[in-house]
Amino acid sequence: MRSTAKHLRRYYNPDVGNALRMDTNTNVLGSNPAAEKFIRSCKIDANDYPNTYSDRLRDELASLYGLERENFVVGSGSDEVLDIAFKTFTEWNDGTIVPVPSYSLYDYFANVNGGDAYAVDLTDDFQLDVDAMLKPKAKMIIMPSPNNPTGNLFKSKDVEEILERSKGPVIVDEAYGEYAGTSMIPKVNEFDNLIVMRTFSKAYAMAGLRVGYSISNKNIADMMNCVKIPYSLNTISEGAAIAAVKDQDFIKRSVDLVNRNRGSLANGLKKLGFEPYPSDANFILMISPIDHSVFTDGLKEKGVLIRDFGSKRRTENCVRTTIGSEELNNILLKKAEEVISENSKK
Amino acid sequence: MRSTAKHLRRYYNPDVGNALRMDTNTNVLGSNPAAEKFIRSCKIDANDYPNTYSDRLRDELASLYGLERENFVVGSGSDEVLDIAFKTFTEWNDGTIVPVPSYSLYDYFANVNGGDAYAVDLTDDFQLDVDAMLKPKAKMIIMPSPNNPTGNLFKSKDVEEILERSKGPVIVDEAYGEYAGTSMIPKVNEFDNLIVMRTFSKAYAMAGLRVGYSISNKNIADMMNCVKIPYSLNTISEGAAIAAVKDQDFIKRSVDLVNRNRGSLANGLKKLGFEPYPSDANFILMISPIDHSVFTDGLKEKGVLIRDFGSKRRTENCVRTTIGSEELNNILLKKAEEVISENSKK
Repeated sequence: MRSTAKHLRRYYNPDVGNALRMDTNTNVLGSNPAAEKFIRSCKIDANDYPNTYSDRLRDELASLYGLERENFVVGSGSDEVLDIAFKTFTEWNDGTIVPVPSYSLYDYFANVNGGDAYAVDLTDDFQLDVDAMLKPKAKMIIMPSPNNPTGNLFKSKDVEEILERSKGPVIVDEAYGEYAGTSMIPKVNEFDNLIVMRTFSKAYAMAGLRVGYSISNKNIADMMNCVKIPYSLNTISEGAAIAAVKDQDFIKRSVDLVNRNRGSLANGLKKLGFEPYPSDANFILMISPIDHSVFTDGLKEKGVLIRDFGSKRRTENCVRTTIGSEELNNILLKKAEEVISENSKK
Repeated sequence: MRSTAKHLRRYYNPDVGNALRMDTNTNVLGSNPAAEKFIRSCKIDANDYPNTYSDRLRDELASLYGLERENFVVGSGSDEVLDIAFKTFTEWNDGTIVPVPSYSLYDYFANVNGGDAYAVDLTDDFQLDVDAMLKPKAKMIIMPSPNNPTGNLFKSKDVEEILERSKGPVIVDEAYGEYAGTSMIPKVNEFDNLIVMRTFSKAYAMAGLRVGYSISNKNIADMMNCVKIPYSLNTISEGAAIAAVKDQDFIKRSVDLVNRNRGSLANGLKKLGFEPYPSDANFILMISPIDHSVFTDGLKEKGVLIRDFGSKRRTENCVRTTIGSEELNNILLKKAEEVISENSKK
């Protein structure tokens, strides 16, 4: 087995049953209606290969952002596009700088592609430590903004300083970008090393269809498309994504719902003794008033899944929940209260 | 850009219009009916992530072949599964042995994964030269059987000798395995280094849905699943593939159609001056009686696409056509006759 990948184990694959899933940060409005309508009514010949580079979806995205087809790379989930970036820009044993805490799969992508991830701590308020991020000798820098699992946006002046001072590609993973309101996408032609990643798995409510994309200048996108596996995005998912891009009203409603419920959920959690961090995304990271694993296991027994980050450095005793509808949030708060009271008595 | 990938250019992406496609070796019966029925009627929540390792499809395949779930790795096209094999078993600059002529994308997979493909010539009758295949110091061996573009199966005693004498993994890509009748799948637990690849893009008529898989012993499959991008196969394609596996009657009819028409197409081509090679697949490679590019360009002008291999070493002046239905084959033969007669007069 490849030496840099030998330590890898299987990924998070919980047996979920009928549990209420507040662990995946998907859209609580449910499945994307335009995508579902497309799938039910589509007349696609499954026998034909898809278009090699998903040109129709790239055209639709170009029109959404006022850019051109050649600025985009489309893949089977933004995970595939991340993989392409590692394959395109890193050599054997190259390092990629990853802030801590952030998305756990970045380390995996570095390792399966023969390289290494260099962990650089965020500041105490989970912002970028610019000098520290630029210190290790690395080929690439990657960061989610809004950050996962902390939930906050990084300051755009910090991101831009890193872009200016870094020689290699800088990936800004905006998986939760729709919720944040601001984006680095308008700057892709300003920087020769900026790659923004986006996904249809969160605000677009299409995680099951696996669609993601990068936005960058044309030179970067062309290199990545040469490396990408030809026609990796299937025809149904491409068609559903095109329909979903055209229905921006659903995205607006999804984002509004989160904005409306974020404050009240945070307040409810505070009343139970949690210390929630500020969020620009559709989830909240918080310090648990009782032991993190006792809390998440207790919730799971009551049919609610949230994500446990309490054993990791920098998120000690922290758990992360998706922001739900008012109804879902109330279930979460009620069950959380029960778990805390049951475990405080003991 | 990664040093081993710098020379890569974009993949075959023809502007096909309404042309008759005899260039992609897909199923001429058209789109898989069970898959289409599934898509039209499915009640899938697009918002939920797929199962991480496509367990339900792996169970269905296990039942088809009398093996176990743990023998399978499922991906977004067999191309993804090939990519996983390179990531799992090769290190930087490692060589992978590829017979010549064979499938052009193997070189691409070696290069994007930081390695190199070592070309080893087949014998004059396009069979494996076993000693030559084992001579270069390489990490892995890969071969399609039936071979593409030549169409013939390799002798199983040669494949088994290579498996026995090779230290590294040996990939037998059975993309056209359904047409061949014989397979290496029953031997996956006999060899500790055998990986068989299969696809839903050919006999299953689902190229647009991007589904492929490998079959191997459990140890190999587990290593590959650890490297695979989690939930890379989307929910719709997985569901459609499960429905398609259950409908083996369609596969039988598809294979029967090819077996029924292979001989008459080859005879028709011979009468026009072509020299077709023997085929165990749903396509025929043949030496053209006139210049290969004049012939394929002429056919294209008449609305029929076939694939031109005439500029490549070992397939000089050769072209490859899919074996169609009687009707499609008659169109091909008629147009081919026109092109030859127009270009013989000049």
